[in-house]
Amino acid sequence: MARTRTSSSSELLIELRRDATGSLHGQIERALRAAIRDGRLTSGTTMPSSRALAGHLDVSRGVVVEAYEQLAAEGFLVSQQGGVTRVGSTAAAASEAVAAPSPERPRIDFAYGRPDVTQFPRGAWLRSVREVLNVVPSDLLAYGDSRGVAELRSALAAYLNRVRGMAVQPDRVIVCNGFAQAISIVGAVLKLQPGARVAVEDPGQRDPIDVAERVGLPWVPVPVDDCGVSVPALDRSAASAVVVTPAHQFPLGSVLSADRRADLVAWARDRGGLIVEDDYDAEYRFDHEPIGALQGLAPEHVVYCGSASKVLAPGLRLGWLVSPGRLVGPLAAAKEASDRGSPAIEQLAFADFLARGEFDHHLRRMRSVYRQRRSVLLRALARDAPELVTAGASAGLHVTAWLPKGVDEEAVVAAAHDAGIRIAGLAGYWVEARDRRPGLIFGYGTAGDREIEEGVATIGTLVRASRATTRTGSDGPP
Amino acid sequence: MARTRTSSSSELLIELRRDATGSLHGQIERALRAAIRDGRLTSGTTMPSSRALAGHLDVSRGVVVEAYEQLAAEGFLVSQQGGVTRVGSTAAAASEAVAAPSPERPRIDFAYGRPDVTQFPRGAWLRSVREVLNVVPSDLLAYGDSRGVAELRSALAAYLNRVRGMAVQPDRVIVCNGFAQAISIVGAVLKLQPGARVAVEDPGQRDPIDVAERVGLPWVPVPVDDCGVSVPALDRSAASAVVVTPAHQFPLGSVLSADRRADLVAWARDRGGLIVEDDYDAEYRFDHEPIGALQGLAPEHVVYCGSASKVLAPGLRLGWLVSPGRLVGPLAAAKEASDRGSPAIEQLAFADFLARGEFDHHLRRMRSVYRQRRSVLLRALARDAPELVTAGASAGLHVTAWLPKGVDEEAVVAAAHDAGIRIAGLAGYWVEARDRRPGLIFGYGTAGDREIEEGVATIGTLVRASRATTRTGSDGPP
Repeated sequence: MARTRTSSSSELLIELRRDATGSLHGQIERALRAAIRDGRLTSGTTMPSSRALAGHLDVSRGVVVEAYEQLAAEGFLVSQQGGVTRVGSTAAAASEAVAAPSPERPRIDFAYGRPDVTQFPRGAWLRSVREVLNVVPSDLLAYGDSRGVAELRSALAAYLNRVRGMAVQPDRVIVCNGFAQAISIVGAVLKLQPGARVAVEDPGQRDPIDVAERVGLPWVPVPVDDCGVSVPALDRSAASAVVVTPAHQFPLGSVLSADRRADLVAWARDRGGLIVEDDYDAEYRFDHEPIGALQGLAPEHVVYCGSASKVLAPGLRLGWLVSPGRLVGPLAAAKEASDRGSPAIEQLAFADFLARGEFDHHLRRMRSVYRQRRSVLLRALARDAPELVTAGASAGLHVTAWLPKGVDEEAVVAAAHDAGIRIAGLAGYWVEARDRRPGLIFGYGTAGDREIEEGVATIGTLVRASRATTRTGSDGPP
Repeated sequence: MARTRTSSSSELLIELRRDATGSLHGQIERALRAAIRDGRLTSGTTMPSSRALAGHLDVSRGVVVEAYEQLAAEGFLVSQQGGVTRVGSTAAAASEAVAAPSPERPRIDFAYGRPDVTQFPRGAWLRSVREVLNVVPSDLLAYGDSRGVAELRSALAAYLNRVRGMAVQPDRVIVCNGFAQAISIVGAVLKLQPGARVAVEDPGQRDPIDVAERVGLPWVPVPVDDCGVSVPALDRSAASAVVVTPAHQFPLGSVLSADRRADLVAWARDRGGLIVEDDYDAEYRFDHEPIGALQGLAPEHVVYCGSASKVLAPGLRLGWLVSPGRLVGPLAAAKEASDRGSPAIEQLAFADFLARGEFDHHLRRMRSVYRQRRSVLLRALARDAPELVTAGASAGLHVTAWLPKGVDEEAVVAAAHDAGIRIAGLAGYWVEARDRRPGLIFGYGTAGDREIEEGVATIGTLVRASRATTRTGSDGPP
């Protein structure tokens, strides 16, 4: 992937001043010496032929030959068979790629929210890119609508209406770079509204809080129970907007109940409130009763956020917002301000990928892969860590497991880490809630069956050891 | 590009409640009727087979058959040969793609800063995407370094060091979505610094002003002359940073002179000022003396912004920042906050494209295309609009042309528009400068030879008409 063509070196930057004192070949020598010393030309780089460089600089070929000979004599350049000249290996090497130290890979990884990117459908994606490059009108490669290309907005509307039970018009879709940009844009728009105050789930994800703090938007936590966010508490909070995860509450895994959905929509209608629906993980339901998006119930009161990160790959950075009519303008303006729109070829490829049914196809395939891993995980937990009580296993890519009371969550996470296991506890996701309980988040998107089993067995042992210590250390056996 | 596969319709969302009153087939009928009325299922869509839908919903096939027959009787569904069932054409059509009204295309387009996207190297780009999809480790498709993939940062460093005479280490490169996001991120970071105040060129581009106003950063205009920005005026402005276009001042087209470069760097060193270098159009120099980037002179005092928009296509949204050491952290954090990093496949494809020498190759080809258009434009201006005095023609994708004194720039632009010609005047780019002069910006990135000639001839006529009016209307013939 990284061969430099000879010809490309003729783009080498050399500034010649014809009015300057000193010969032309001397100027070339100084420029090349400096470039090699600075590391702008690295050892082994093929130099342009003397003819090419002479043509490029508009000097006679003899001038360049003289400079090359001098630099070869000094060891900066090396002449090779076939008349090729390269930068010498004794020349000062500099400006090498500074490799970032790779973070130590855990042996067993229960990180949540990570799909299995080894399953990315490379062939199907390439077919879509090829189709786009074959047929797309050039206009679409120029500056365009900051909301995204019309082809993708239509394809997403059709997909969301069909699969998520939504009511989406293509002109209300705004394509973003993943959920991260979507929530960031929503935060910027909320901030513009006088008296805005955003409620977040407690426990809940950190992203909306981070965004609120960055843009200077007041925020308030609202407790979550087994049925989802508490609507009376939301009402009391005097928030003008709330960010929720109805399909699979993060991190507890509950699905927002039908009654709670109705209450939440009633709150939005009565109070003029805005619901920001983070529909992450919605594609992974492991039973026969899929739950539609909240947006379908109240399209004028919901900003919907979705992404391809959990189905295809986070590296695509493909996400989308669906907006109520009144917010399309402000959200599109915020996207325009952020980066003037998402990359066109990738958007068009995704539109094609959706329209061909490849997205559905991949989703079906992955659903069965994850269902299998989930079964392995649940079986292993029941067998080798029966002290843990699971929750939220009906959807998504993680299972939350409550630790027995009195077990030190932080100590278990740390001991697991020492044993080469990456797993998150719940501690980082509580905000104010009083009835905090210790728990672990078992992400099963990336781990293999054996790793899952070994990891669970180890954690089971750690939990039992921790209980024993707790008992011994405090008030002895119950 | 937009055929829906039959199988994908089995992803149709139907919520069945087994505890509800009413038959299962009745529930299915109501759900499908609603979906068709809402436009979630559009006319002509292929329905899943009764067997597939029954399996999906975990009901007997007879239940689905009954529902389909009822809906067919009502005209919502149509049974076709081969047992295929489709949504009927008499069903309420809704949720159609809302086509944005396409802005009226000018007959002749002198818009500036637009490359010729019809020349986008589709085949070469596809080869790079294919290579990436063939060889890239899956890890790179997961969440990654918000600065961008290491492969691209290395390839960009090598390219910029070689071609732009810069001093770039890969770990100081931050990949962005075009210049728009780059300058937006720079603005967010400047805003964090106590007492920050940014100077902009007058006349100059609007983007840095828009960003400053958005983030609440004080800004001040500094006049530009034939050699570039006035350093004494910058010094008096008490700005802590300045945004400049050294390679091709926008809109006047001047190249920042060697003396002025030295003065500007001295200002940065003495005052601890930051230079934000917008290196747009730098690739297009039409003489033999390329000018290096300012960054090469003072890497610790310059934030460099570049993009592939003017060489390849704006639709790629590929841009990059090169940062002084002390700002890498804050800029990377701002990029992380904005969208958690740019799309991986596109970054990797561009890295491959650069390493193969395809970028250089395309650039050489386009340089000759634009040189030709520039010649046609300059010849046409000399012949058919001799009243206009050109400036800044040695680089870039536009030529600025001064109008004779007394000619109403706005009237000429409006009259050109009425004649089907899109061209910008200078009026929108002055801020405070006293010696404003009327002028036009002839972008020649996208117009063909004949359009250029016809457009210039028409504008010449309009200018002469305007002068005649001015003379007659004011103090008669001189």
